[in-house]
Parts: sequence; structure tokens; C-alpha cells
Amino acid sequence: MTTSIPARADSAQLDATDPLAAHRDLFIGSETDLVYLDGNSLGRPLRSTAERLGTFVAEEWGGRLIRGWDERWFDLPRTLGDRIGAALLGAAPGQTAVGDSTTVLLYKMVRAAVAAHPERREIVVDTDNFPTDRYIVEGVARECGLDVVWITPDHTRGVTPELLAPVLGEQTALVLVSHVAYKSGFLADGPALAELTHAAGGWLLLDLSHSTGSVPLELDAWGVDLAVGCTYKYLNGGPGAPAFGYVAARHLDSGAFEQPIQGWMGAAEPFRMGPSYEPAPGIRRLISGTPPVLGMLALEDMVGLIESVGMAAVRAQSVALTEHAIALVDDVLPEVELRSPRPSAERGGHITIGHPRMREVTAALWRRDVIPDFREPDALRIGLSPLSTSFVEVEAGIRAVRDLLD
Amino acid sequence: MTTSIPARADSAQLDATDPLAAHRDLFIGSETDLVYLDGNSLGRPLRSTAERLGTFVAEEWGGRLIRGWDERWFDLPRTLGDRIGAALLGAAPGQTAVGDSTTVLLYKMVRAAVAAHPERREIVVDTDNFPTDRYIVEGVARECGLDVVWITPDHTRGVTPELLAPVLGEQTALVLVSHVAYKSGFLADGPALAELTHAAGGWLLLDLSHSTGSVPLELDAWGVDLAVGCTYKYLNGGPGAPAFGYVAARHLDSGAFEQPIQGWMGAAEPFRMGPSYEPAPGIRRLISGTPPVLGMLALEDMVGLIESVGMAAVRAQSVALTEHAIALVDDVLPEVELRSPRPSAERGGHITIGHPRMREVTAALWRRDVIPDFREPDALRIGLSPLSTSFVEVEAGIRAVRDLLD
Repeated sequence: MTTSIPARADSAQLDATDPLAAHRDLFIGSETDLVYLDGNSLGRPLRSTAERLGTFVAEEWGGRLIRGWDERWFDLPRTLGDRIGAALLGAAPGQTAVGDSTTVLLYKMVRAAVAAHPERREIVVDTDNFPTDRYIVEGVARECGLDVVWITPDHTRGVTPELLAPVLGEQTALVLVSHVAYKSGFLADGPALAELTHAAGGWLLLDLSHSTGSVPLELDAWGVDLAVGCTYKYLNGGPGAPAFGYVAARHLDSGAFEQPIQGWMGAAEPFRMGPSYEPAPGIRRLISGTPPVLGMLALEDMVGLIESVGMAAVRAQSVALTEHAIALVDDVLPEVELRSPRPSAERGGHITIGHPRMREVTAALWRRDVIPDFREPDALRIGLSPLSTSFVEVEAGIRAVRDLLD
Repeated sequence: MTTSIPARADSAQLDATDPLAAHRDLFIGSETDLVYLDGNSLGRPLRSTAERLGTFVAEEWGGRLIRGWDERWFDLPRTLGDRIGAALLGAAPGQTAVGDSTTVLLYKMVRAAVAAHPERREIVVDTDNFPTDRYIVEGVARECGLDVVWITPDHTRGVTPELLAPVLGEQTALVLVSHVAYKSGFLADGPALAELTHAAGGWLLLDLSHSTGSVPLELDAWGVDLAVGCTYKYLNGGPGAPAFGYVAARHLDSGAFEQPIQGWMGAAEPFRMGPSYEPAPGIRRLISGTPPVLGMLALEDMVGLIESVGMAAVRAQSVALTEHAIALVDDVLPEVELRSPRPSAERGGHITIGHPRMREVTAALWRRDVIPDFREPDALRIGLSPLSTSFVEVEAGIRAVRDLLD
């Protein structure tokens, strides 16, 4: 349809020549007939993770007990954060920490951004952003007496510089954008959004939930102020695995970043247990309570795999998979509407297709062990995990939609 | 010394006649020589948990993938919460949910209590409360423009009705008390504190971190308004396992309870992904982000064990263990100060002893594989997990202190 999508290649041939194909066997379920196209909701576990968790319980938790905190766990939110920063975010050490849910971290970030701009009264967010992002912004705006400035993107795309520029001004405290839009898969222009936001004097908070592990990020180079990301999608951390947060070093060093949930693990001297809260210097001030160690173990495995593969190869594979999916949709499902960008440079790791009958189609697909995601009211979302989804799996899924529409 | 402490009995004999002794073998590490007296910081894992986590990864996460949310995980914070409520809290269903850290839940609870009393300007908390409790109260008071009213208990006890009554009044929005004090082990009089607080027109928030799994609770009968508890101590949930929160049904039914971290998982219709946040009816409105499923699995195992044993037996064992420890301290460590209540009815599951040399003693104990907890500046805290600590272990630990002081 456009030059960015190649003619459909043979799926089995693509798998046979795929340089990353060997990695699929590392994931549980790759040996089954299940067609899994929802890795952007919950990624498959690595095989190593099952054994690792059992070993952790028997040896590290059971064997070291409370000593584990001194030996490894206390620093784990930051050592793992630094690894995520280096391998995935383009972030120098000391700016990333793991813990809490994405929602709780978004709350901390939005509150911190508002507190750092006491003279400004507006938070900018888009109507197509994920519910938690919108709800957090609404709640913080209400509690702090601020206004929400809504951007309304085209549903097949997302927040562009052209949409953002007109709403920015001297009242802008914060702009919150999902770097890859959860519905359309639109990949926002991070550096351009940061530059615009900074020109207006506000901070940019990127939600990286659908970006991390699918598209390369350069948060330091782009000048992003704050970011939050999810780890149970392309980072395969398991259901409800803890999120991570990034705070640019300049806002930590200046002390401008202060978050409202003052817990002992974010205090300068946690074990002194002093009378008043004094925030830790550096990224540890993002932390509130005791870190969720069990929830970080699977994530450690996947970060290790991405470190060895490299995000450039992951992104190349992700692009190849989404291009293949779009070519198949064009070829096999002509009556369906593609609701994701066609140019690969504007697309993350998933695509969305719409049709009035998609609700019933999704239900029928699930009964056939073909598992994509459904989004209200009529959209099928196809998530392609770069290291665990095969080209054959993509084709099988799309042909199953064809069968069901017939 | 008082009639509540029996003469010291023979430790091996106590173990031999202990009706719960068989349960010790269910825990990893019970076969080793390690003397573990810090189960109130981090409980030992059950043996079943190691296998369970591996099975979960391979079969439930790996096999069911995203379908696991519909099948079990979405409701898990509340089904597990209800089990905790029934077995441990004296709470009818629909008032308890698992998720977030203790710190984050305390923040939500304190903010909710303040919001429910807009005309009142004071939060009451004690200077001996755990740092996170104090820091959260300080932070919320500052952000909401309220005052903190400090109670200063005797360091060997905790918050009594006599200490609380004089500071209550028409400005009291909330009283926050640790039901079992983290330092002294003092067991507060829950129903009396609730009655006093309600007479003044405020809400009582109990921190149950050191109570749950060591002392019986009757939150409904006592009229407690809000509670938060930790699951990695006597509930053996693993390092950083998620906390639970309790909100009395009357505050859910009336809509008086509203917390500030508005996430999609607490919305009335999470998968409609509607334009504005509408809190779910019932306890689900306490939830913000995606529930930490992996972190709830070990906890499920231990709640199951407590369901089968019953809290009355657990409490009887806990009292027997702390009485034994106090009798040993009296007998073997006459120069040491007992900083916990002597009457068993005023004591939770741990005791604290003070001596000027306790810092070096603790370090030397750890080198000998005797693991108690140290609390600044000179206190040794001996935590006795009712189902995994033996009487012989208690004696070995206290005799090791004797050796080191000599």
C-alpha cells in the first residue's frame, strides 16, 4: 500500500532466516500450538525464570533470610534500574529505580512535576492515553487545583509535535505522553516533544509501558525529564511485576524532584529511623516502601537477555514482525481498517485493526487458542514480542481472523 | 519476676510436647543450625512455596498467559484479602485487598481519612511509631495543611488509652497507631483506642505489620476504620511481598472512603477504559495499578497454613515463645533491660532487650549464625515466628548473647 511495507514474504522462510529465531526456544510455551499475540499485555516467561524463582526461595530467601537485604536486595531497585537504564533507556546510572506499580509511579511523577512548578497551573495529556495516565492526571489536577489541558489525537496515530505545540504556554507544568500509544501503536517523537515542552518551561513525562523492550530509547540524549515504564509486557517480568521510574539527574541533583509518598526506604538514612523524613540524595528518593524483590527476579532474566541481544537487533525484529503483520492484513483482510501508522518509523511493537465484528471474532479466536487483545469498541490489537513471536505465528493469527470473518 | 512469666521450662521438653512442632518442618531452613530470631522482619519460606512458584511460572503464567487475568488474577487481591480477613483480621468479606507496599497503602489510607474529615485539622501519631508511619503522616499533613499531634509513649510500651485520650478533640481527623509496636512489642488495646477515637469523631487507622499472624484481631468487632498490614513478616510472603489494606464496610458503602491514586484497576469498569475515573464500589477502590500476582503466591501458602492451624493456636504458641524468652532473659541475662511488657496480654510476638554493648553483640551473633534484629541505639529485637521458631532456638540465641557479653 505504501513503500514502507514490503510485499508479503513467506512466514516459514522468514523464521528460517531469522537471526534471533533461536531465542524463541528460551521462552515457555514456544513448543505449543498456541498463537500468542498479546505479549504487549503480558509477555511469556523465560524458561530460566521458573527454575530461578524456585532457587531464589530455597537458597536466597530461605538461606540468607534477613541478611539478603544487606547482601543484595536493598540495592536491587537501583542496580536493576541501572541495567534497564543502560540496556533499554539510554540512561546513565543513578536515574532509574524499580518498584511500585506503573500507576503509583505515575502518581509520584505527576505530583513531583507539579510541585517543581508551583507557579504553573496546567497538565497536558491526550484523550487517547491509557486510562491510568488520564485518571492520575485528573486526580492530581483536582487535588492540586490545576487544570487538565486535553489533546485529541487521530485515533490511528498519537501525540505529534503539531498537536502539542498549540496547547503549550507559560502555564504548562507537565506534559504526559505515552511514547508508544497503547491503542494505535503510534511511536511519538520523544526528542521533539521534549524540546517543545522545555521551550515552554515545563517537564516532559514519558510513559514507556509499550516502548521498553520494543523500541530504542535515548532518554538522556532527548532531554526527557521523567519516565515510567511497565515490566510485564516486553520485559517479561510476570503478572503485576513492578514498574520502573526514571528521573533526569539534573532534577535529582538540584533537589527539584520531590515525591509525596515519604517512606522509610526513600529516606536518606533508612536504618537510623530518625524523627523526620529527609529524602535520600539521588534516585533512591523515588522509592517509598520495601522493594518487591520477588517481582524483580523474572525481570532480571529478561534484562539479561536483552543486554546480550541488544536493542538495535530487538527493534529490527520488531519492525520486521509488524511489517509482516501489516502486509498480511493488507493481503488477507482487505475489509479491515488498519489503525496503526504504516511508516515503520512511526510505529512501536504492536498494530491494531478495526472491524465491526471484532468483539465476536476475538472471543472465537480465544476459543481456538489464538490470543490477541481486544480494545473497545471494535479493535483487535496484535502484540508482537520481538524475541518470542514467530512470523508463522503472526500469519496463523491473521489467517484465523480471515476464517472467522468468512 | 511477675506472675505472668512462668519459671523457665526446659527448651527441649517444650519442643517435644509442642502441639504445633510438626509445622516447623514445613519451613525451609528448619533442618539447619541457623538460629533465626528475625521472623518479624522477614519470615522463612514454606517449602511448598519454592515448588509453587516454579509451577506458577511454567503452568499458570506460561500456560494461561493473558487469560490468567480473567481466570484468577484479577480477583486475587480481593479473594486473598477475604481469606486474610477471615483467618486473621476478624473481617467480613469485601473489606480487605492485597497490593502495593505498606508505605503506599498507608499513604492512601491517611489521605482518605483526611479527605473524609474536611473540617478537621489534626492527625495523631506517636513518636515511637515506625518511620514510614511517621513520615507518611508528616508528608500528608504538610501537603494538606494539617497539624501532626505527637504522642510520646514510654519506650518499653506503646500507645495506651491514657496517652491517647488527652490529645483527642474536635480537630482529630485520624489516629494512626501500630497495633503491635515495632520496637517494644507492646500490644495496643484496639477496641479501647477505636472507642476513644470515635467518641472524638475521628477515624482509627491501625498498622498491623507486627500483629498479623501473631495476635488475633477482631477489626469488625472493634470498630476499626482502616488498617494496613505487612505480609513478609509473620505471613511469610517473601522479601517485599505486597501489603494488605482493610476499609470498614460502612466507609465503603457510604462512599466516604476515597483514595488519591486513581488507577485503572480501581475504576468501576476497568476494561471500558472510559474518559473519567469513577471509583469501583467496595474495596476494589483501594486498588490503583495492576496487582502484583507473583508477590501474592507465597502469601497464599502461608494463609492456607494459618487457616488450618487457627489464630488461637498461633497466639498460644506466640505467647509461650515470648514467655520462654523472657524467662530465659531473666535467668541468663540479668544485666540486660527488658524493653517489652511483661504481661502477656500486653505483648505481641517479639521482645526487645537493651544493653550498651548490643550493637557489637548483634554483629558477633550474626557471625555465629544467630540472627536477631538490631535497633538503634542499643536494642536487640528477638522475633519469634509462632509456627517456625523452636523453644531450643530461643534458648540457643539467648545463651549466645550470654557468651558474647562475657
